Amino acid sequence: MTDEQEKSPAEPIRVGVLGARGRMGMEVCKAVDAASDMDLVAMIDQGDWLFNASDAGAEVIVDFTTPDVVMDNLHWCIDQGISAVVGTTGFTEQRLERVRGWLDRKPGVGVVIAPNFGIGAVLMMQFAARAARHFESVEIIELHHPRKLDAPSGTATHTARLIAAARAEAGLGPVPDATKDEVPGARGAEIDGVRVHAVRAAGLVAHQEVLFGTTGETLTIRHDSLDRASFMPGVLLAVRAVRNRPGLTVGLDALLD
Amino acid sequence: MTDEQEKSPAEPIRVGVLGARGRMGMEVCKAVDAASDMDLVAMIDQGDWLFNASDAGAEVIVDFTTPDVVMDNLHWCIDQGISAVVGTTGFTEQRLERVRGWLDRKPGVGVVIAPNFGIGAVLMMQFAARAARHFESVEIIELHHPRKLDAPSGTATHTARLIAAARAEAGLGPVPDATKDEVPGARGAEIDGVRVHAVRAAGLVAHQEVLFGTTGETLTIRHDSLDRASFMPGVLLAVRAVRNRPGLTVGLDALLD
Amino acid sequence: MTDEQEKSPAEPIRVGVLGARGRMGMEVCKAVDAASDMDLVAMIDQGDWLFNASDAGAEVIVDFTTPDVVMDNLHWCIDQGISAVVGTTGFTEQRLERVRGWLDRKPGVGVVIAPNFGIGAVLMMQFAARAARHFESVEIIELHHPRKLDAPSGTATHTARLIAAARAEAGLGPVPDATKDEVPGARGAEIDGVRVHAVRAAGLVAHQEVLFGTTGETLTIRHDSLDRASFMPGVLLAVRAVRNRPGLTVGLDALLD
Amino acid sequence: MTDEQEKSPAEPIRVGVLGARGRMGMEVCKAVDAASDMDLVAMIDQGDWLFNASDAGAEVIVDFTTPDVVMDNLHWCIDQGISAVVGTTGFTEQRLERVRGWLDRKPGVGVVIAPNFGIGAVLMMQFAARAARHFESVEIIELHHPRKLDAPSGTATHTARLIAAARAEAGLGPVPDATKDEVPGARGAEIDGVRVHAVRAAGLVAHQEVLFGTTGETLTIRHDSLDRASFMPGVLLAVRAVRNRPGLTVGLDALLD
Repeated sequence: MTDEQEKSPAEPIRVGVLGARGRMGMEVCKAVDAASDMDLVAMIDQGDWLFNASDAGAEVIVDFTTPDVVMDNLHWCIDQGISAVVGTTGFTEQRLERVRGWLDRKPGVGVVIAPNFGIGAVLMMQFAARAARHFESVEIIELHHPRKLDAPSGTATHTARLIAAARAEAGLGPVPDATKDEVPGARGAEIDGVRVHAVRAAGLVAHQEVLFGTTGETLTIRHDSLDRASFMPGVLLAVRAVRNRPGLTVGLDALLD
Repeated sequence: MTDEQEKSPAEPIRVGVLGARGRMGMEVCKAVDAASDMDLVAMIDQGDWLFNASDAGAEVIVDFTTPDVVMDNLHWCIDQGISAVVGTTGFTEQRLERVRGWLDRKPGVGVVIAPNFGIGAVLMMQFAARAARHFESVEIIELHHPRKLDAPSGTATHTARLIAAARAEAGLGPVPDATKDEVPGARGAEIDGVRVHAVRAAGLVAHQEVLFGTTGETLTIRHDSLDRASFMPGVLLAVRAVRNRPGLTVGLDALLD
Repeated sequence: MTDEQEKSPAEPIRVGVLGARGRMGMEVCKAVDAASDMDLVAMIDQGDWLFNASDAGAEVIVDFTTPDVVMDNLHWCIDQGISAVVGTTGFTEQRLERVRGWLDRKPGVGVVIAPNFGIGAVLMMQFAARAARHFESVEIIELHHPRKLDAPSGTATHTARLIAAARAEAGLGPVPDATKDEVPGARGAEIDGVRVHAVRAAGLVAHQEVLFGTTGETLTIRHDSLDRASFMPGVLLAVRAVRNRPGLTVGLDALLD
Repeated sequence: MTDEQEKSPAEPIRVGVLGARGRMGMEVCKAVDAASDMDLVAMIDQGDWLFNASDAGAEVIVDFTTPDVVMDNLHWCIDQGISAVVGTTGFTEQRLERVRGWLDRKPGVGVVIAPNFGIGAVLMMQFAARAARHFESVEIIELHHPRKLDAPSGTATHTARLIAAARAEAGLGPVPDATKDEVPGARGAEIDGVRVHAVRAAGLVAHQEVLFGTTGETLTIRHDSLDRASFMPGVLLAVRAVRNRPGLTVGLDALLD
């Protein structure tokens, strides 16, 4: 049970990990273990008891499990007064609403749910949204390993929507494009009026480029993620922040300011 | 003489250009002439009378002249109650202080002085300053045509200083660098602890890349300027904004928010 | 009339330009005029007499005209024993065959016809064809100004075909691609099995990137053309070489070795 | 003992690995094991007997050991009539001469010694050497993780030398550079007249960019290596080729043609 008042500032945060044997969960365990201001007190996966985490005095739970169990996990954490950082996918607006309801009854508890813990990716999207209204042209190129099933990536689609919204707000019309004679697909997919190109090649991991252009100049924002480990600074940032942010926080953006 | 109250919002802004026969001045004249919400009412250069501008009813003066005449020009504009947008270089803190003094006595007049009117370059610097505290590593690579005399560029030096300040504020220490065995110059110039590399090659114009890195990911912000015309959207933005910003505004940043 | 034997090596090449008032023709005139080893002896355009070129002693004719007049021009040059460098478009295999026929009867005369005089673009294509058989993955991204009518560009289509041929020769199968769920167009156009993405944005000129990938590494070849002037070194190279290459040479490749 | 005549073309190549427990050696073992046309018959490291390899019928030995043992290993292989692929560093011209001497007495045996088995890196260097004589400007930017001790990298230094030699052969003078006012180091290190910039940042692995420029255009060749595994296609290529290349082959170049 958390009681920050009794803790000296130097005392490490006691962290439990759910989904500890999954690919992301294992990375989280390693990262928490390596952080000098955190103690890894519980590693829990399918078949283990959640109460191991509370028994071990976990103050923050990190959840990288699956959409079918994450709601139960969260309900239990909030009940126990344990704050949570959640990277599990599948959060609809309806699910977020239910989490808010649970949190209303536990005012001291914080929950951070983020679809993307890559600080670089989140900044890329923030900068793209901010630059959008100053450039007449914009296109997105995302590049991934060839085992990826969807094209474009979720991050690229999300970035396109943010840009489209910013353009609309600034009163910008459609991007200029005189293309008359197109081999089908050459100009990419159109997401809310923004062209998105998906490149797939061996040797790539996960990359995205947002290209803005106006008379005589371009501005390019590029993110290269080479390793699952790239999400860990964002997870640790959320672990450090979550107990001071009661209620629900969606996305890493708010924590970066 | 400016009197906004009497003007309908649709009435074009009356603009005079000082340094109208210089390279930048000619671009400004073209851009103002092409803008549907502006009228180019005076083109003035060495040997012409400044009073031509006031006689023509200029509401905003754009000054791309030289350090030796710009202070006289500005004094005259402020005296006449004409707002000014200044791209001339050489403004020291002392000069800015004098301009502030003149403006104190003319409360309705606005002056925007910017070392760089490229919206892309200004956004690049803003984003770099904002990303700086989230990444342990950062380096700057600027690339220019081989006729450039200084290395690194003023923009690169300024960006390095902004980044260094943001890192200091966030409590970040020096960037990690294990280099033991260096051919002199390989690791670039050090500006406030930030490494800056200056590339010179035919075929280039003016480009800058800021590379941030942390575990498993990098974020790159790149600006490519191909043409003097790239400064014009920034100049026009300032012309539109200056009459509503009494006093001195330094840099385009404030106008981009 | 050419007679190299009588010329000292230091004597400048006498060059005539057809299409001298067109955009490319004007650049050629400037470039020839600036070259210390050439003399610009005739500038000819619509309404001028071709015989002005032979009267002026042109040894090499550069033709940047239009598909409807270029065959007559070439026929005339070969008849006169004047070598020619041709950048005009529209050369089908049938047209090339006719030119070969004319040249057979004039053994001393050389003609270079090239669809692209950009040395960088030609090298990019050569390198791409050479790298193709060593990488399992390859994609092309071409980026142009938004006034371009076709997508992908002719250069990108040509590069894709060269790569596809090199892959086939090396016995490589299709590139790996697990995409199951695609927003139409996201994966680009398919040219002979090679994915090509066409980006259009203000501030761009003409750029192309060929990305090769295999386990753990990528190789990228990128060409940026900022200016029509970028074709001039290739034109001058051809002017210098054409008199020593009797018969027809198609493409700049042969001249680069 | 090798006897190709007796082997059907489909029979796998029997491969032994020296330095099998080192970082590179382990990768080689994995790669050989995964290759359908090879059998991994011996994994040998410090303290193991070399004769285990010949007893197991190794036809090709791959050596990723250390400079102090590699010469003995090679002498033994050649004596035994076993061809060898060597990635160990430290080969001086003198050492190569000795290996040539040993091979002279064993005409059927082949040895491939390569400082770099990355196909992408080798192609990058080939293309750079080939492009060098067509561009007035060239600079190298290499980018690595911040734990690297030397700057610039060996690959960058080697590339600079190749480029300098190609420029000299083509009669090109120094690259244009008007820099008058330089913060020390900004213009990089000078290797045989070629400027080389070394960038160090967390999140990077091993990357190199060679930038060529001439009037109005640039050509960039970039290699990104994300993983030690990127050397394996080159090692396997050499294993497949070495028995058909009696004598000494230095560098992967010859095998790529």
